[in-house]
Amino acid sequence: MLLLTHEDVAGLLSPKDAIEAVRAGLKEQAAGQVQIPPRTTTDYTSGKGWLRLMPVIMNGAGYMGFKAMHSTAGVGVRYRISLYEMDSGELLSEMDADWITSHRTSAMVAVATDELARKEATELGVLGSSEQAKAMVQAVAAVRSFRRVRVFSPNPEHRRAFVESIRSQLEIDAVAVDSAEEAAAAEVVCVAIRAGEEPAFRAGWLRSGAHFSGISSVRPEAREIEDAVWSRADVVVVDDLGHVLESGDGRSGLASGELREERMAELWQIVSGEKPGRTTPDQITLFKSVGTALQDLSLAIAVYQRARERGIGRDAGEFPHIRPFGRQ
Amino acid sequence: MLLLTHEDVAGLLSPKDAIEAVRAGLKEQAAGQVQIPPRTTTDYTSGKGWLRLMPVIMNGAGYMGFKAMHSTAGVGVRYRISLYEMDSGELLSEMDADWITSHRTSAMVAVATDELARKEATELGVLGSSEQAKAMVQAVAAVRSFRRVRVFSPNPEHRRAFVESIRSQLEIDAVAVDSAEEAAAAEVVCVAIRAGEEPAFRAGWLRSGAHFSGISSVRPEAREIEDAVWSRADVVVVDDLGHVLESGDGRSGLASGELREERMAELWQIVSGEKPGRTTPDQITLFKSVGTALQDLSLAIAVYQRARERGIGRDAGEFPHIRPFGRQ
Repeated sequence: MLLLTHEDVAGLLSPKDAIEAVRAGLKEQAAGQVQIPPRTTTDYTSGKGWLRLMPVIMNGAGYMGFKAMHSTAGVGVRYRISLYEMDSGELLSEMDADWITSHRTSAMVAVATDELARKEATELGVLGSSEQAKAMVQAVAAVRSFRRVRVFSPNPEHRRAFVESIRSQLEIDAVAVDSAEEAAAAEVVCVAIRAGEEPAFRAGWLRSGAHFSGISSVRPEAREIEDAVWSRADVVVVDDLGHVLESGDGRSGLASGELREERMAELWQIVSGEKPGRTTPDQITLFKSVGTALQDLSLAIAVYQRARERGIGRDAGEFPHIRPFGRQ
Repeated sequence: MLLLTHEDVAGLLSPKDAIEAVRAGLKEQAAGQVQIPPRTTTDYTSGKGWLRLMPVIMNGAGYMGFKAMHSTAGVGVRYRISLYEMDSGELLSEMDADWITSHRTSAMVAVATDELARKEATELGVLGSSEQAKAMVQAVAAVRSFRRVRVFSPNPEHRRAFVESIRSQLEIDAVAVDSAEEAAAAEVVCVAIRAGEEPAFRAGWLRSGAHFSGISSVRPEAREIEDAVWSRADVVVVDDLGHVLESGDGRSGLASGELREERMAELWQIVSGEKPGRTTPDQITLFKSVGTALQDLSLAIAVYQRARERGIGRDAGEFPHIRPFGRQ
């Protein structure tokens, strides 16, 4: 069992590696080889924390495992993934999954952008200035050639610092804009904000032909987009239908009638060609990600393989041990 | 994070320690402090293995965690437990749970025997000769003074070897008997056999005043006792009602009408006095265990504390790392 810490994992994969990894997972999903059992989330009775377990089995690739994440009041969130080889049953690795959790989402956004955004898109708009927002810019820049990135974040200092880091680290021209609306007027729009009780993103901001990606509303109480965004989009794609419908934006959209389940596709259906994506240049396309264990495991496999190649991590020997059949 | 291998864990707790640990868990359950979310079991599509996750939160004790177990065709079963401290969110230990899985069941059987068997019982009957059977004998011998143990196992060599090990290691007189029926005629009866498609244990074997413990039927296809055993028992106690009703014996008993849910109690209800146990010397009492994550975690806490006291295991540093709130 290879123990991989956050320091071991962070940066081991390039944005392109991560995109390739989640794409492989989506192809396996399209082939009907993936099982994603329900995840369980249990809140402390005190309300001061919760524990979530997300199992997944990739029968084609021959890997299985789970992400365990937990939130602790006054402390923060911790993420880890257990990766097993199915045939031998060996626990290959126990790895920190903070980096994976941020970057699997960005990689999915990049795959969706590659599938859905206009090929000739040259401007990217970003709402948010977090590490997650930066990972998204980096990932979508791997699938489209942007001339410029428009950045909006409510805090002027944050947005200036973010512009600087895009220019220096990603080597793309970037400008800070003074309103969310200005950032949202780009051809490709990515939103990674702190989701709140009220949706922050307005349907009227999206221009014809735009591709929108949102990742901020996951829990039932968290909102990112107003309901009309769902109906303004001509093509609505998500990573996981069930989980999206449980998110704050999903629930509200269903309740108001602006979101209709039969109009939604899962990303693997677009990748495999089972459902059409963008069919005309003027359509507005939308991708919403809430995160799945498949994305986590897809990246965990790539991280494990790369770590083994490079001799990174600490080998903790065979763990757990085997109880052979026939001995009770 | 303290990494504890099978060698580290095995034998760290005495039978009395283990009994005390599961009793503490039952008391916390009686106080309404325990959350046991549904466990998820996912079979490979090939049928060649499965992965099970069993989370639990002990709000009173301040610990949480999960057992992950998986079965691999041609290899065997592996068990592990992740133990967390709730307040800090720290992953305290990652431990092999093979020893715990055998001994938590024996400890539960001992608590139930202590609560339900006649005080003056002097003879123990055992069906089975596995490590699990031995752990049961050892555990129940910690709560009753047996003059003699009757052992039956279909394989004469196994039963003789088992008799020897009880005599030499547990220092209790033991005899091999030639039929299951002879072993079942004792005052306290423990069954740990390979559960099969057909139930092996007959209702008519139980004598008046006996206490019976069965642990072999867990999966829906696995049978241990014939349906009439359920109705022959005056007092029916289980570790987890929901899981017992999903076991082969539970399903069959319900279907035939020999088992009625309203007659069943969970062990914590007996320990806390919420429901009566044995009320007359002539009653037949029955305890059936299928195993719960609470039992696993109760022992894991005791194992962790003992390992820390004795400096056992390998400290792997802080894992996983913390993502503070407010950073996405």
